[in-house]
Amino acid sequence: MTITLIGAGNVGYHLGRRLHKKGWTIRQVFSRKLANAELLATKVGAHAIDDLMALDAQSDWYIISVSDDAIGQVAQQLSKIYGMQDKLVVHTSGAASTRLIAKYFKRAGVFYPLQTFSKNRKVKFRNIPICVYVKRQSDEKILLKIAKTISKTASAVTDADRAVLHVAAVFVNNFSNHLFHIGQTITEKEAVTFDLLKPLIQETVLKIEDQTPLAMQTGPARRNDTQTLKKHEAYLQKFPDFAQLYNLLTKSIQDAYRR
Amino acid sequence: MTITLIGAGNVGYHLGRRLHKKGWTIRQVFSRKLANAELLATKVGAHAIDDLMALDAQSDWYIISVSDDAIGQVAQQLSKIYGMQDKLVVHTSGAASTRLIAKYFKRAGVFYPLQTFSKNRKVKFRNIPICVYVKRQSDEKILLKIAKTISKTASAVTDADRAVLHVAAVFVNNFSNHLFHIGQTITEKEAVTFDLLKPLIQETVLKIEDQTPLAMQTGPARRNDTQTLKKHEAYLQKFPDFAQLYNLLTKSIQDAYRR
Repeated sequence: MTITLIGAGNVGYHLGRRLHKKGWTIRQVFSRKLANAELLATKVGAHAIDDLMALDAQSDWYIISVSDDAIGQVAQQLSKIYGMQDKLVVHTSGAASTRLIAKYFKRAGVFYPLQTFSKNRKVKFRNIPICVYVKRQSDEKILLKIAKTISKTASAVTDADRAVLHVAAVFVNNFSNHLFHIGQTITEKEAVTFDLLKPLIQETVLKIEDQTPLAMQTGPARRNDTQTLKKHEAYLQKFPDFAQLYNLLTKSIQDAYRR
Repeated sequence: MTITLIGAGNVGYHLGRRLHKKGWTIRQVFSRKLANAELLATKVGAHAIDDLMALDAQSDWYIISVSDDAIGQVAQQLSKIYGMQDKLVVHTSGAASTRLIAKYFKRAGVFYPLQTFSKNRKVKFRNIPICVYVKRQSDEKILLKIAKTISKTASAVTDADRAVLHVAAVFVNNFSNHLFHIGQTITEKEAVTFDLLKPLIQETVLKIEDQTPLAMQTGPARRNDTQTLKKHEAYLQKFPDFAQLYNLLTKSIQDAYRR
């Protein structure tokens, strides 16, 4: 099973390195920016390429890790390369449909590592759930087998369920991270150190290891502590955008306990 | 330094046990519900009381851990007990002013452990920042000294700064936790396991240990990936409240990168 990686962004970079580390052979790495292709290719012992048409059809598996908007176009271009018809071609996106690839390839699929990646940060790949989906049933075994060499959690997940996971991932990751940013903005505006809040942030996550977030909720919205809610509203007049979020999130918490 | 604990809720329970464990003597524990007072009193070797007027003035330090709305009233009642005039009296609230106590006591203060507590969950108290504030300067040394026996981070924090920390704490803790609840609601509605999202949630927090949340942001809002944003909006028609939050948080992220 040899691999061609198309895209050397955050996901391609970490996934490529992990596959390489677990003994899989990566032959070619494509990026529109040659420097990016080279950065990754050097680390995984592959050949760097910045022209899609220079890719060859010698690999068994093609992984497309480009922005969602570009997947369809890349798949189309890939399909024009001689000898590609029977290749297994997947993308790594949480939100994009398998159809973008299935339009051009019989053996289309998805290989989605459910995690947030930044190039300058190592992640424990073993803990990252890999969501696999394929058009041709016999390919499922192949992708799950590979997924299990790089992660302890590999699951077959339909397009519809992956879309649900991706929306939920935006809430739990992107939006939470933005709330941390708001916390930092508020404290640093008043010259209070954000570090004082970090143990609280850690505990927020540890709490839901074995309890539901609903059961673990605390704070003025949960307690209907109107005095404190009013104080916070008054304070947040300094930050009108944050005030709007504060009100909507407070209302949403209160609704959750009315159900 | 002997202690009387007034209130045996989440904060009083954990703080009382920690002080006891570090060798401080707790003499009396008050709760309106005798069972709660007894639960804690047994664990810290104190006497349980359910009538405020049955408290005595034999302790050096009085810790009021009741709901914000009740602090003023409790302080007033406490001040009627003979011999209480010169006692050090603090509350443990993030949001309440010191004035609620200072109205009745010269030696008023705050002893605020910046953490989220649930009775059935152990926390590493050593990691919890304790924010101390006192009306009489000489008491600051006393409270900081005690705080340092139970935590590695003890700081003098003014009422104004504590209020700021408390608003920020609501964003990073209560609101993030609610986003986790939304993630669970969405996934479980579709019979997808929420557990698949837990490694992502962990990584969200680990990422900000040494980087700012602003630098660590990823996702469709950050990338201005309009195709995915539209898909998510369409999907969230099933959850109108969540859709409203999704739009406002997306806008807020985009604003953060325009600044």
